[in-house]
Amino acid sequence: MENENYTETKIYKLNKPIVLKCGKTFDNIEVAYQTYGKLNENKDNAILVLHALTGSAHAAFLNKKTNKKGWWDDMIGPNKAFDTNKFFVISSNVLGGCYGTTGPKSINPLTNKPYALDFPVVTIEDMVKVQKELVNYFGIKKIIVAGGSMGGMQALEWSIAYPEYVKSTILIATAARLNAQSIAFNAVARNAILKDANFNNGNYYNSSCPENGLAIARMIGHITYLCEEAMYKKFGREFKDTPSFDFGVDFQVESYLEHQGKIFVDRFDANSYLYITKALDYYDPIKSYGSLENALKDSSSKFLVISFSTDWLFTTEQAKQIVSTLIKLNKDVSFVELESKCGHDAFLLEFEKQTKIIKSFLGE
Amino acid sequence: MENENYTETKIYKLNKPIVLKCGKTFDNIEVAYQTYGKLNENKDNAILVLHALTGSAHAAFLNKKTNKKGWWDDMIGPNKAFDTNKFFVISSNVLGGCYGTTGPKSINPLTNKPYALDFPVVTIEDMVKVQKELVNYFGIKKIIVAGGSMGGMQALEWSIAYPEYVKSTILIATAARLNAQSIAFNAVARNAILKDANFNNGNYYNSSCPENGLAIARMIGHITYLCEEAMYKKFGREFKDTPSFDFGVDFQVESYLEHQGKIFVDRFDANSYLYITKALDYYDPIKSYGSLENALKDSSSKFLVISFSTDWLFTTEQAKQIVSTLIKLNKDVSFVELESKCGHDAFLLEFEKQTKIIKSFLGE
Repeated sequence: MENENYTETKIYKLNKPIVLKCGKTFDNIEVAYQTYGKLNENKDNAILVLHALTGSAHAAFLNKKTNKKGWWDDMIGPNKAFDTNKFFVISSNVLGGCYGTTGPKSINPLTNKPYALDFPVVTIEDMVKVQKELVNYFGIKKIIVAGGSMGGMQALEWSIAYPEYVKSTILIATAARLNAQSIAFNAVARNAILKDANFNNGNYYNSSCPENGLAIARMIGHITYLCEEAMYKKFGREFKDTPSFDFGVDFQVESYLEHQGKIFVDRFDANSYLYITKALDYYDPIKSYGSLENALKDSSSKFLVISFSTDWLFTTEQAKQIVSTLIKLNKDVSFVELESKCGHDAFLLEFEKQTKIIKSFLGE
Repeated sequence: MENENYTETKIYKLNKPIVLKCGKTFDNIEVAYQTYGKLNENKDNAILVLHALTGSAHAAFLNKKTNKKGWWDDMIGPNKAFDTNKFFVISSNVLGGCYGTTGPKSINPLTNKPYALDFPVVTIEDMVKVQKELVNYFGIKKIIVAGGSMGGMQALEWSIAYPEYVKSTILIATAARLNAQSIAFNAVARNAILKDANFNNGNYYNSSCPENGLAIARMIGHITYLCEEAMYKKFGREFKDTPSFDFGVDFQVESYLEHQGKIFVDRFDANSYLYITKALDYYDPIKSYGSLENALKDSSSKFLVISFSTDWLFTTEQAKQIVSTLIKLNKDVSFVELESKCGHDAFLLEFEKQTKIIKSFLGE
């Protein structure tokens, strides 16, 4: 008997090519996805949740093989923020990812080898285009979109690209575009991968992967996901042991970062890290449409925007830029800045606070 | 005829070994230093200026060979903040550095090879001990100490280690100890060097240096020296050219960081970067003395503390920790937070604002 809290990843193969933002036409796209809850007869109770940089389709419930919970399991399920008793929740891995959706480690049918850097540079807009094909496959009439961080950028792009189709948009710990500092962090992270001795122009799938570079990229990421307050709370200036007086790991915060770097290398593809950070850097509807007002003017969605007080990667100020634009456009928008000591990671951790607000927004 | 605004680096060889904080006794220490202005007869008009992570003894005036100005030339000279018509200004390269003072790239007299990682792990306290020997050599009676960033930590340590000897202490953009986030950034930077394929356990002096790792370390550094406001002002989200749709340099901020990384590799030793960042991480008079009050209680110095509003590496909050301790101890302390858009770099850039305050503090 299947336990309803178990889940598995399915594959949807697009039946047509996609014209990417870079101008290339890209075919043979497969999308890894999961669903939770049931689609109703009217096909209007769907919520598409959108993952962040290193996420996967496995947003909720238990994976049958690993027995691990999804990345937003605290938020998706019966009576949770995204209530699977009422809603049909879909989650898919992004284009360019490494968790089942076509990405740089996928086999290029023309060469029978992994694409590696022959994979086209994809954008947030392209990711959303692919998601739309998946949603069409289900015959969904109107949709709710929700995501944090890069997931929020995708949700925003949904409301821009499909203004009539999206009925509600939930933007959490996100921005209309990265600021210069975030681009800088991504640039250094990519540099660490690109300069790794194992990188071999992306063709490392039959040898050692650029694990040092990828670990450094992840360590940089983790510094930006926390905030000094969170770091102080978690680690302070505590030594792991006594001062080593060498270049081993001394402080607990170093130990944490080293660990995060190490475990990441086993679960993520370095090329995907390059592609997805590039997609983050490039996303800029303000530039694409001349202004955010122009980008959002046709949207018929209502909006919920949530920011976190200590998030310095996607700041409240950036959230307010979206909110003030929506207000100018007379859109239906709710905005909350939640107090948190968790920095950017709050969107994955502060589920109680988010649940109340999201439930209320979704009319429960 | 010698132009008085030219300078050159001299070497002072210590006539005794130093007992380091790690417990080792270290001999054959040479110190690279420069001086500006003249020591008076009473030998009480000396100011020791202390450099930051990657600085050198060349703080002011023009280098005869390179024709380059010193790192604080805007602050040191006739009628400047540190007025060489009145004061005798000394600047020396720190122990562990790579600009003339004994460090990991120096020749170990026991092996006739560079020390590399056989160089002992040195601390801010050790750097200051070495500086004291240099100052003793000049027969200086009382001293003024001044520095920004790591230079400020050295100045603070001077007032702690030689409480009767220091008459004035100028602490700029500094803290009594790094916070967890700064330790994290240093840890990632060191990781990039240690994992570079060229690192070879520090023995790279006869081959290629770990230039990729060192460049990454420098790029991380530069992100922390600027602030989002400064980055936005300098670069915004401007493209260097048009979007490349590959993994080349796209944004101006990327181009800036790449450039900073590249030029740094030619001027700095990767091993020194390891040692000096470790010294930064380790410095913690609060832990060493039980409290900052206890550390500073015997000081007879007066203090000037300057912080910058957008400095997120050494924050105003951290400066205030020093200030409030000094107030509790009834010490003579002045504190100014200067408005600046330059982030941590402000101590190297905002010389007009600093000059007024420092001149006033020095009684001019």
